[in-house]
Amino acid sequence: MDKIGRYTFQEYLKVVEDFHGNPSPGLVLGGIMVDYAISEVPAGVLFDAICETPACLPDAIQLLTPCTIGNGWLKVIDLGLFALSLYDKYKGDGVRIFVDPEKLKGWDEIANWLYKLKTKREQDKDRLLAQMQQAGRAILSKRRVQIKPQHLGKTSKGAISDCPACGEPYPKRDGAVCLACQGESPYIEK
Amino acid sequence: MDKIGRYTFQEYLKVVEDFHGNPSPGLVLGGIMVDYAISEVPAGVLFDAICETPACLPDAIQLLTPCTIGNGWLKVIDLGLFALSLYDKYKGDGVRIFVDPEKLKGWDEIANWLYKLKTKREQDKDRLLAQMQQAGRAILSKRRVQIKPQHLGKTSKGAISDCPACGEPYPKRDGAVCLACQGESPYIEK
Repeated sequence: MDKIGRYTFQEYLKVVEDFHGNPSPGLVLGGIMVDYAISEVPAGVLFDAICETPACLPDAIQLLTPCTIGNGWLKVIDLGLFALSLYDKYKGDGVRIFVDPEKLKGWDEIANWLYKLKTKREQDKDRLLAQMQQAGRAILSKRRVQIKPQHLGKTSKGAISDCPACGEPYPKRDGAVCLACQGESPYIEK
Repeated sequence: MDKIGRYTFQEYLKVVEDFHGNPSPGLVLGGIMVDYAISEVPAGVLFDAICETPACLPDAIQLLTPCTIGNGWLKVIDLGLFALSLYDKYKGDGVRIFVDPEKLKGWDEIANWLYKLKTKREQDKDRLLAQMQQAGRAILSKRRVQIKPQHLGKTSKGAISDCPACGEPYPKRDGAVCLACQGESPYIEK
């Protein structure tokens, strides 16, 4: 694996560090996966992304594709799986890339990391990243997917008005008061 | 508002365009809000972020702070509110920045956008961005918050093993098979 997206491997590590804080193994493997996924999307297709874990992988998608959380083209659906899909944003057909356990033999440091057989302290990070770079797509598999219709496109928030309880603008479809005032606030009431 | 984070207003628009695809109003206002929030965090405090909407604002946080979705320092809790908080990642005390409806008088284009009183096509985007830049923090309010304990820190996925149904590595705590095999997959079965 010499290139990840438009970057060399070393350049990618730098881009990751700037955005994510450190060149985490999940973002290195994630970069290889996203690069693979992009190569499977036919030229000219406008794609959206689903990431099946919130850990690391979303940042690889955000760094290497036009899809971000804030623009709505990337959705995180937490299934606890280290996998992602890129798919035609209108038709919903696309490709899913995942780590294939059957292909991990011979890549012990990657398996140690993925299955958490070693603690972070025990892992040999240089060896791990070297194995990831060397393995590249050899430990990955792909399959064609079709996204369920309910996950396609953006849903409009509909009409906005001020919450009668807290006074802040909220989507009226959420109810008589905003979701925070319905008890979903992450803050302790004072 | 001349600066957003370490960028001039014009530089910020460029950074936004590179990451997010276009200088959306939500990301411009979001940048001003994040900049305000950062200025309220005492120096040296390691902070996490909560974003109360998935629309636009998460990208301003990811561009202007070390907090990203993938590194776990940014959580999106969708309350439909255009607001964010930055807080001490260990103690949970912090500041919440929100758009204050009482301060919107005189900023008609911002109100038109926030309350969707005009369609995107009807909005005067140049005028809208100019009002945002001119208003800066004048349309925002802050309050001190304390994050509920359940939202603090990262939760470990625990032990990982191969799903007996699909064969992929998954967190055993999710059950006898992975969440995708439990029916939460976003893909149509073939």
